[in-house]
Amino acid sequence: MADGDDDVPLILTWDDATSGLLEEDENAAGNYDVVNNVVIPTPGAPDPRAQNSLRQSWEMNYQEAAIYLQEGENNDKFFTHPRSAHALSAYLFAHNHLFYVMELLTAVLLMLLSLSEAPAVPFLRLDVYIHATLELLALALVAFELGMKLRWLGFHTFIKHKRTMVKTCVLFLQFIEAIVVLVRQTSHLRVTRALRPIFLVDCRYCGAVRRNLRQIFQSLPPFIDILLLLLFFMVIFAILGFCLFSANPADPYFSTLENSIVSLFVLLTTANFPDVMMPAYSKNRWSCIFFIVYLSIELYFIMNLLLAVVFDTFNGVEKMKFKSLLLHKRSAIEHAFQLLLSRQRPDGVSLKQFDGLMRFYRPRMTARDRFLTFKALTYSDTTMLSLQDFYKFYEVIGLKWKARRSGEYWFDDLPRTAFLIFKGMNLLVKSKAFQYAMYLVVAINGIWILVETNMVNDGVSWTHVVPLSYIIFLTIYGVEVLLKITGLGPMTYFSSGWNLFDFSVTVFAFLGLIALAFDMEPFYFIVVLRPLQLLRLFKIKQRYRNVLDTMFELFPRMASLGLTLIIFYYSFAIVGMEFFAEVVYPNCCKNSTVADSYRQINVTIGNRTVLEEGYYYLNNFNNILSSFVTLFELTVVNNWYITMEGLTSETTHWTRLYFMTFYIVTMVVMTIIVAFILDAFVFRMNYSRKNREPLDDPEDEKGIVFETEVSQTEALQTLDLYKHTLGVTNLSSLQDMCVALERSGHSSLVFQGRRSRTKSDLSMKMYEEEIQEWYEEYSRTNLQPDETFHRELDSPEANASNSIN
Amino acid sequence: MADGDDDVPLILTWDDATSGLLEEDENAAGNYDVVNNVVIPTPGAPDPRAQNSLRQSWEMNYQEAAIYLQEGENNDKFFTHPRSAHALSAYLFAHNHLFYVMELLTAVLLMLLSLSEAPAVPFLRLDVYIHATLELLALALVAFELGMKLRWLGFHTFIKHKRTMVKTCVLFLQFIEAIVVLVRQTSHLRVTRALRPIFLVDCRYCGAVRRNLRQIFQSLPPFIDILLLLLFFMVIFAILGFCLFSANPADPYFSTLENSIVSLFVLLTTANFPDVMMPAYSKNRWSCIFFIVYLSIELYFIMNLLLAVVFDTFNGVEKMKFKSLLLHKRSAIEHAFQLLLSRQRPDGVSLKQFDGLMRFYRPRMTARDRFLTFKALTYSDTTMLSLQDFYKFYEVIGLKWKARRSGEYWFDDLPRTAFLIFKGMNLLVKSKAFQYAMYLVVAINGIWILVETNMVNDGVSWTHVVPLSYIIFLTIYGVEVLLKITGLGPMTYFSSGWNLFDFSVTVFAFLGLIALAFDMEPFYFIVVLRPLQLLRLFKIKQRYRNVLDTMFELFPRMASLGLTLIIFYYSFAIVGMEFFAEVVYPNCCKNSTVADSYRQINVTIGNRTVLEEGYYYLNNFNNILSSFVTLFELTVVNNWYITMEGLTSETTHWTRLYFMTFYIVTMVVMTIIVAFILDAFVFRMNYSRKNREPLDDPEDEKGIVFETEVSQTEALQTLDLYKHTLGVTNLSSLQDMCVALERSGHSSLVFQGRRSRTKSDLSMKMYEEEIQEWYEEYSRTNLQPDETFHRELDSPEANASNSIN
Repeated sequence: MADGDDDVPLILTWDDATSGLLEEDENAAGNYDVVNNVVIPTPGAPDPRAQNSLRQSWEMNYQEAAIYLQEGENNDKFFTHPRSAHALSAYLFAHNHLFYVMELLTAVLLMLLSLSEAPAVPFLRLDVYIHATLELLALALVAFELGMKLRWLGFHTFIKHKRTMVKTCVLFLQFIEAIVVLVRQTSHLRVTRALRPIFLVDCRYCGAVRRNLRQIFQSLPPFIDILLLLLFFMVIFAILGFCLFSANPADPYFSTLENSIVSLFVLLTTANFPDVMMPAYSKNRWSCIFFIVYLSIELYFIMNLLLAVVFDTFNGVEKMKFKSLLLHKRSAIEHAFQLLLSRQRPDGVSLKQFDGLMRFYRPRMTARDRFLTFKALTYSDTTMLSLQDFYKFYEVIGLKWKARRSGEYWFDDLPRTAFLIFKGMNLLVKSKAFQYAMYLVVAINGIWILVETNMVNDGVSWTHVVPLSYIIFLTIYGVEVLLKITGLGPMTYFSSGWNLFDFSVTVFAFLGLIALAFDMEPFYFIVVLRPLQLLRLFKIKQRYRNVLDTMFELFPRMASLGLTLIIFYYSFAIVGMEFFAEVVYPNCCKNSTVADSYRQINVTIGNRTVLEEGYYYLNNFNNILSSFVTLFELTVVNNWYITMEGLTSETTHWTRLYFMTFYIVTMVVMTIIVAFILDAFVFRMNYSRKNREPLDDPEDEKGIVFETEVSQTEALQTLDLYKHTLGVTNLSSLQDMCVALERSGHSSLVFQGRRSRTKSDLSMKMYEEEIQEWYEEYSRTNLQPDETFHRELDSPEANASNSIN
Repeated sequence: MADGDDDVPLILTWDDATSGLLEEDENAAGNYDVVNNVVIPTPGAPDPRAQNSLRQSWEMNYQEAAIYLQEGENNDKFFTHPRSAHALSAYLFAHNHLFYVMELLTAVLLMLLSLSEAPAVPFLRLDVYIHATLELLALALVAFELGMKLRWLGFHTFIKHKRTMVKTCVLFLQFIEAIVVLVRQTSHLRVTRALRPIFLVDCRYCGAVRRNLRQIFQSLPPFIDILLLLLFFMVIFAILGFCLFSANPADPYFSTLENSIVSLFVLLTTANFPDVMMPAYSKNRWSCIFFIVYLSIELYFIMNLLLAVVFDTFNGVEKMKFKSLLLHKRSAIEHAFQLLLSRQRPDGVSLKQFDGLMRFYRPRMTARDRFLTFKALTYSDTTMLSLQDFYKFYEVIGLKWKARRSGEYWFDDLPRTAFLIFKGMNLLVKSKAFQYAMYLVVAINGIWILVETNMVNDGVSWTHVVPLSYIIFLTIYGVEVLLKITGLGPMTYFSSGWNLFDFSVTVFAFLGLIALAFDMEPFYFIVVLRPLQLLRLFKIKQRYRNVLDTMFELFPRMASLGLTLIIFYYSFAIVGMEFFAEVVYPNCCKNSTVADSYRQINVTIGNRTVLEEGYYYLNNFNNILSSFVTLFELTVVNNWYITMEGLTSETTHWTRLYFMTFYIVTMVVMTIIVAFILDAFVFRMNYSRKNREPLDDPEDEKGIVFETEVSQTEALQTLDLYKHTLGVTNLSSLQDMCVALERSGHSSLVFQGRRSRTKSDLSMKMYEEEIQEWYEEYSRTNLQPDETFHRELDSPEANASNSIN
């Protein structure tokens, strides 16, 4: 391994000046043996110039390999791969967390500006010149980011990248508008603000949102087909309804064809049922058949069909997405592998090259972890990494390494007496009796809270006296937490999600107690969270654990779906604010059928004056926060037509279009959410059924575990290698390992790499057989799923893999 | 084949006197060779007594085999198999369509009685003694049916059969009650009438409903688990909401803990949103967070989880059901096969025995079809049916046989000129141009109707003048129908569902025209159905055809689900009528928060007097029809709390329990319906993806087709066999076949058996591989999926199948 210095890269990346001496042979990879003899000086007499240029060309290769692997991880297409050394600097500038954070903050700032613009939230109102200047600043930053991208991609690729082009156009438009606003010192009708979320969507950190949007767009065609069927039946029934009921003067719902269509659209959401039926029903009891048939067809059949179609598409899309991601990663690995090969060793990567790669790919990783990762990859027990080994790269890279503890408990090293005490505690907290005793306490606590709350009849009075029961139960919970932490050890305790939940609820309850005792009124809400303790009861049953675990697993994805929804909300809120701000007010909409809901009058009953409130004037678009609440109410659908009719009566008929569009858009997103939950849940159930494993073993930690054994000699050799050959400076982690090995007294030490299981791991196991087929198909066609920049790599790679087999 | 007379059954069924001479050998099936020599007289000198008893024991075997096959088809468990000859007569009495129809009519009559009982539908009211007498009569009939069942099952099995026992108890109770009513001459509180649907569910024809109910009950345990989670969160939030909002005097929704729980339960159905939020929101804008969090967790997460859990269970249950049905059928086939074996031919069934079986199994089947079915079963080209062949019994039995036409068109045999004219028509109606021209006509018609309807502004006046456009379009459609019928031939035309649809819509439109022309007012509604023509447009796109085909395929199952829902409705309607009849009326419920919805007052605005109606008093339980409409409104959920609160204010708090229970029950049924539609649709999509076939080829008839070739000599031989050996009298079908063979001039004729494809066929193809596993597992364990009555059959059967392989 010490002769690694003499290796010459099999392939040279980027036409860099330093690799000039090897350039003529770049396309003649076949006869490297001769080249080898010619170019490389004998080990005895190293030529410093060649040595230096060799090292530099290796560094370039490491860097490009690391970039390939990053692209594989992030699912960046290879056609955006930096093509030259000066594109590289722009690439590196635009690909680090500082830059990403800046990107995100700019986008968030732009979106938050609407809090302070024209129909502003009262306490956040800013002067026009302030918010316009802020906007210009933010836009300038976005322009700068785009400039970096242009530099890195080159003009040609930049033009071809659709998302970036849209972003550029929107940026341009916003720039002009912001300048106009600044000059006129007043906001004009700026519906284009609805496009601002594009900047957020384009952020590196919002990849999940982009994926969701793509999935939504992919599910659209079948969705729209069924939607048309739905609307078609609606129109037919509207004509029918108009013919049947328009003769009844007491029936305002079917008086004209337009009313008829609107009534049936609202009926689709059930929001006006049974009122829409009542005038006709009161005249002729059999007219209810019309509505029953309509609802049965539309609501109970076609709407469910909509879900079925989306669910079906969603299923397929999920699998295809997984497949293309998997093959993209594989292709990235192959690209990187080629760059790490040397002419001396055309079919394997040595630790030296791997270490070089990792220094670029994960700069923060310690030397020990780099070495252990290398060990974990090489199954075939050699010191070389074959392509087959390297395919596991992404599985191994996220592992957190630590030496396997020989002892079972955290208190193994303590003196005998302490050990026995802790051991007793450990046995206690692990016993069934203790657990069920705690369930009993929680149950009693629950009943106590219910009874206590039920006995308060005239509103909750915030008494400053802390109730005794509160202190007693809190003490019990506190003792439990302390016992568990000491008995299991803090590490074990906090690695369980359930324990974390217990801990935080108990801490909150304690904070609530302090708030009560010290009379801090704004924190009273914490006291109210006490009933959350009761959730612990659901640990008893396996199914609840599954459901709640699934819930936690789904959480990141749900959050990204939520964010997607918020982006739609944002756009609709902007449009709503531009057109409907300050339109409704108490006692407005007198001409509409929903006037009652907007009423605010004093009514005298006997000798008391009561304020009769319809409250619906609160559901307005006066600022962005109110708009969001209004849009949420529209999402929930119930009574949404009151808001619609109110606004329609104060503006024009076309207002209804806004509301109907919003309904359809949220229907799409909501259907996707339902399909997603269904899919995720059914997937997990199938997974656990297929693998005959309980979905969740509460005591056993889940996750992916790799183990690798390091002997003392190996450790010392590696330390030596790193110190002398590679010239790595920060070796404390490796030295620590050697020390630990010496101290342990064993000749070798086992290291465990651990990471939590991701959806991708589950999918890998679920589609095991199909994955093999995909791989075979992929290697048969030998075409990367994406256009590759380094297409010329394919043939030597095929050679290399042939020589392996 | 002519020596079939001498066959002795391998197994004798029922300890019948006629089989006495063979009885001693019944359990010694192994040594039949010896028995054969001893018992059977030589062919030359038949002993008439033995011959006769032999024929009788064969007849018994045929009958029992037919019963086994029927049990397999109907999924009747074998432990209810008739065990003796006198049980057989009761069995035969209770297993024919006349009996089934009587059973059904009795059950329907009992259910319909509630139309005329105490809170009766006005125009159907009957005197107490009339409806009580009718009820007693119907109950007596049910008792008679149960008596037949007792006779057939025997007391021991009868007691063990759970459903029958429940039915007996309910019958007893109802009898007593009916007598009490007759004696007192007035109805008392008869909540037990809610149990009447049990008689309907137990009917033979309501098997689908029973299956649905079983499926609902099987899905219940996981459903209830998640429901508890839902209710648990609800209670926690109710406590929280009470603590947060009860201090606000303007907020009636959270004033007490009970109100708080009820409000959040209603909020679960979104029916009181956003009103429930408004008082709190108007006081503090941040309080909307409470509601948003509540709805996000409960409505958008846990409710969807509920669907996911039910969908998952449903999926599994569907597959298990299919498996157990399949194995049950297989077991029935094996039982029947054993009974058809003779000692001379222990591993195959000859045409004679098969024909004997079929005369019992399908008495209406013609001799030709019996013969063709036998031919279709024997793949292995012998004259014997092996067990492997016989396994296909249920696939072949439903086929409709007819000789394959040599010609392509129905008018092939017409003279040349007529042929050319019809041929031209055929080409015309099959051409794309014709089809798209028709689509265009339909589209224009659609736009015409829309414009026409939109121009009528002040209600539709039923003018007696038939509009010209109506006549024109109808003429075009009529010509199209005639062209198609003549061009394709009536058989081909009516075999397509779409053509049937076209035809009936056109006929309806024509009837509407007649109604208009002759001024028959009650039939005007037919005119209104005109827009249904527009549905034809959906033929253009493949996906719509799929969706609509799926819709038609699902229809029987949907109907049975609808019936199941109606049964639940019935029970709830009875309970509702007993407790809430005549409780609400105009201007009632003054003390409730929903008084406005029950208002009916004259309001004077300016100088006009307007009747202001709340209409909700129409949603009552005054008779069973009103109850059904009210329950449907509750199913749709929107504004259901108005009905609940109205009734609660006039009765007690416990009324809410009725409504909440109903909500949860319908939620279960509705979730099942959604899961069913999802499952059926996804299943079809997967099926078509797996088999790489388009879901539907409009020109090609779908269905299962078997073909079998009959030669002239074979036909004559068979005719001879039937005439002389089997003594079958009605041979016209066979003679016709021989005549057709002679006339055709060919030496043989191909017959096609055709039937439509069922869900079971699709499942067979979907689970192909798994089915093989099930069969292997089944034959390995050699245990029937049900307890079998003839368990002793297993060993000879195993021998038989061994000797086949």
